[in-house]
Amino acid sequence: MKYKYPDDSLALHTDAYELSMMQTYWKQGIGNRRAVFEAFFRKMPFQNGYAVFAGLDHIIEYVKNLHFTDSDIEYLKSTNQFDDDFIEYLRQFKFSGSIRSFQEGDLVFNHEPIFQVEAPMMEAQLIETAILNILNFQIMIATKASRIKSIVGQQPVMEFGSRRAQELDAAIWGTRAAYIGGFDATSNVRAGKLFGIPISGTHAHALVQAYRNDYDAFKAYAETHRDCVFLVDTFDTLKSGVPNAIKVAKEFGNKINFQGVRIDSGDMAYLSKKVRQMLDDAGFKDAKIYASNGLDEKTIQNLQMQGAKIDVWGIGTKLITAYDQPTLGAVYKLVAFEDKNGKMVDTIKLSNNVAKMSTPGKKQVWRINDRKDGKSEGDYITLDDENPCEESSLNMFNPNFPLQQKDVDDFNARPMLKDIWKDGQFVYDEPTLDESRQRRARHLDSLWDEYKRDLNPEVYPVDLSQKCYDNKLNMIHRIHEYVKTLDN
Amino acid sequence: MKYKYPDDSLALHTDAYELSMMQTYWKQGIGNRRAVFEAFFRKMPFQNGYAVFAGLDHIIEYVKNLHFTDSDIEYLKSTNQFDDDFIEYLRQFKFSGSIRSFQEGDLVFNHEPIFQVEAPMMEAQLIETAILNILNFQIMIATKASRIKSIVGQQPVMEFGSRRAQELDAAIWGTRAAYIGGFDATSNVRAGKLFGIPISGTHAHALVQAYRNDYDAFKAYAETHRDCVFLVDTFDTLKSGVPNAIKVAKEFGNKINFQGVRIDSGDMAYLSKKVRQMLDDAGFKDAKIYASNGLDEKTIQNLQMQGAKIDVWGIGTKLITAYDQPTLGAVYKLVAFEDKNGKMVDTIKLSNNVAKMSTPGKKQVWRINDRKDGKSEGDYITLDDENPCEESSLNMFNPNFPLQQKDVDDFNARPMLKDIWKDGQFVYDEPTLDESRQRRARHLDSLWDEYKRDLNPEVYPVDLSQKCYDNKLNMIHRIHEYVKTLDN
Repeated sequence: MKYKYPDDSLALHTDAYELSMMQTYWKQGIGNRRAVFEAFFRKMPFQNGYAVFAGLDHIIEYVKNLHFTDSDIEYLKSTNQFDDDFIEYLRQFKFSGSIRSFQEGDLVFNHEPIFQVEAPMMEAQLIETAILNILNFQIMIATKASRIKSIVGQQPVMEFGSRRAQELDAAIWGTRAAYIGGFDATSNVRAGKLFGIPISGTHAHALVQAYRNDYDAFKAYAETHRDCVFLVDTFDTLKSGVPNAIKVAKEFGNKINFQGVRIDSGDMAYLSKKVRQMLDDAGFKDAKIYASNGLDEKTIQNLQMQGAKIDVWGIGTKLITAYDQPTLGAVYKLVAFEDKNGKMVDTIKLSNNVAKMSTPGKKQVWRINDRKDGKSEGDYITLDDENPCEESSLNMFNPNFPLQQKDVDDFNARPMLKDIWKDGQFVYDEPTLDESRQRRARHLDSLWDEYKRDLNPEVYPVDLSQKCYDNKLNMIHRIHEYVKTLDN
Repeated sequence: MKYKYPDDSLALHTDAYELSMMQTYWKQGIGNRRAVFEAFFRKMPFQNGYAVFAGLDHIIEYVKNLHFTDSDIEYLKSTNQFDDDFIEYLRQFKFSGSIRSFQEGDLVFNHEPIFQVEAPMMEAQLIETAILNILNFQIMIATKASRIKSIVGQQPVMEFGSRRAQELDAAIWGTRAAYIGGFDATSNVRAGKLFGIPISGTHAHALVQAYRNDYDAFKAYAETHRDCVFLVDTFDTLKSGVPNAIKVAKEFGNKINFQGVRIDSGDMAYLSKKVRQMLDDAGFKDAKIYASNGLDEKTIQNLQMQGAKIDVWGIGTKLITAYDQPTLGAVYKLVAFEDKNGKMVDTIKLSNNVAKMSTPGKKQVWRINDRKDGKSEGDYITLDDENPCEESSLNMFNPNFPLQQKDVDDFNARPMLKDIWKDGQFVYDEPTLDESRQRRARHLDSLWDEYKRDLNPEVYPVDLSQKCYDNKLNMIHRIHEYVKTLDN
């Protein structure tokens, strides 16, 4: 957005309290001590059995370009909320830390670190807001898309939601996340240009209105395009739309590629069956029926159960806004901070709600797969200095219900948090968007079906190593002791 | 977004079918015929009695900068979906039409045109997607903000949702819309810079974790800031957070401006009463209690009913994502199109659902106010050549229930669709953001309380003039006759 400032940057795309805290750290001389923050979410989106990671590409662009411009500096001065010497420090701000992250298309689960920043405290604090702003949206959309794609199977499914997205960025990045989640195309032309996603779309009701009847409109379209999908519900689907689509398709024959018709209103189950019959009777057995109109995984399943004859799905509002749960609610918590002696010390955020307590310490997430069938046994969270590959057997237990446990022997452990930046150096070999899309498909294959069903899936194990668990227990105990001393 | 293309523009931020239709219009030689499109929504957001218009500012920026750049043209060529001569036409594209719109801060209602484009068909078609993308989001947020502000009354209410917004634009433009809707401040520093919205925010749990206890953290903050609001729930609100906030406030005395404490978790009703008592007992009767944690108008009302002692409200997720209804669902329909003789002819989109039929013809919306008390009697939609100011009495009736009617005599009629562009010239004298914010407040004053209550409000009349109604009936009749001929 250029708006009033040609040098507008994203450095100020942060909560005011991040800058307030930075000023405190800076003036107190602790701003350059190393801090480790980890992002995680507490509840599975849409009560799904897995989530699909997305957003890293936008975060990379954000961090790479992160600096305070002249107009940013001028604005901060004008607020009178920050000291001049602190503002001067911001002028030379550059991210000098390390970032580890899941990769786009990876499956992720609640209560595990999905993104990790280790950096001078001030730098790690500044970027919190934008990182969560991006992850909280894109993971939702990729996950919702994956749920929908799982229901439609091999049929093509297209993202049509730009007009219903929450402002421009959501349309663009949302459709990219949907593509990672398994969608096949987008209506948004700019997303096609920026990301190389196939674009799709033919005509709207306006074209038929402009020509005042279906026949003239379809004919005009056929005269000016090779690939034709006619929208048949402007006036009357069965009496006017479909008969005229067939008439034009016959008249033009091989001069066009008649791909099918789109229905955008009315009783989709009934209409699609009728339309299929009409197309078949006219000899267009290969013509497809496209459907769009407030669809999501639930309405699609319902249409499938009714035997609806729909071949291609266009999904708008319900996907692009993550309608039934518009945010993931991921948080970004300090898990370790350097003390005055240069030693990293773990930290915790307590809560009356056990599930809301953070897990202290810099961690790694390991995906544990059975060597024989390749299927995932669960995720295993360790402190950063542990390596489960060196173990012959893992005792995996649920940290909230420690009695629920299993031993895993013949396993493969892969570290899931990959290096993106190391000490200010960008070290990540970025996959293409199609590679990320394939990553989701591949990783879904390694998940048992019970975790993938769209309703009441089995809970995938996300476990803590014994060392990680003990560390958390000890810290909780210590804080309780400290609070007790305050009573006296 | 710069991403891969330094010359990235918003010209391609459109659905592929808009360009496909443009190609048809262009090649058929009708692309420069005048068309009138109108945007409207069908259902009141959140079942509220009114909606608050917002988004015009972003639309103005979009239309002013609308042109196809070299990389846009190159991309279109690469798709092989568009003809070279059509693509060449796009190179010199510039919006040459007229736009009329409600103004930001105006109250708007369902089934009335809120935005109108009269332009060469191709131009009007291209901009549909971005206009709806912007309006569908910003109107929701302004309306949600207005609902919340109405509940909190004179208490300050702040937008804290950036990290939960659906990508970056939603954070920025959402908080601007919230400000129009009556919010007092934002946490997003960039929104402060771009729009002049007051920014607000102190510190997060991370600061307390970094110092390992509340006392040292609050002390460090007080040493580096004049205005202090301490976040008290990192370890234990009543045993550690509040006592340490009081201790630091006493130690620093006049050296800081101790504004109060913020509670971000736990039982807000119980905690706020306890905290109030503790602050009062310590002599800090003016210190405010800030609350944040998944709040919206319903939870705020509930806290009020419980006598919670909260003075300042921070609202995040539920506002910025319009959580309970993430999109307005506004549409953009062709209502008139020039014929080959240069005459404008009205058009309609039919539907099995009466409420989904569009109302043909270029229209104006008049707000009818009683001259005596200044209160709104309803909105009156006319064809563009009508002027209710010339009438001494208006018969207002509900177009869906024509028997429901009233006569209005001593009235004032104000046209609500204002000229923004006229024949390619930008003619709008843009109000400041604060003027738009005041506009909402002023217009709410002229609405009876029965339309403003947050639950089951009375339905505000949105009526058609007799001429507009007859025109619609006639067109529906004509189309039905046409469809009948197809049966034979």
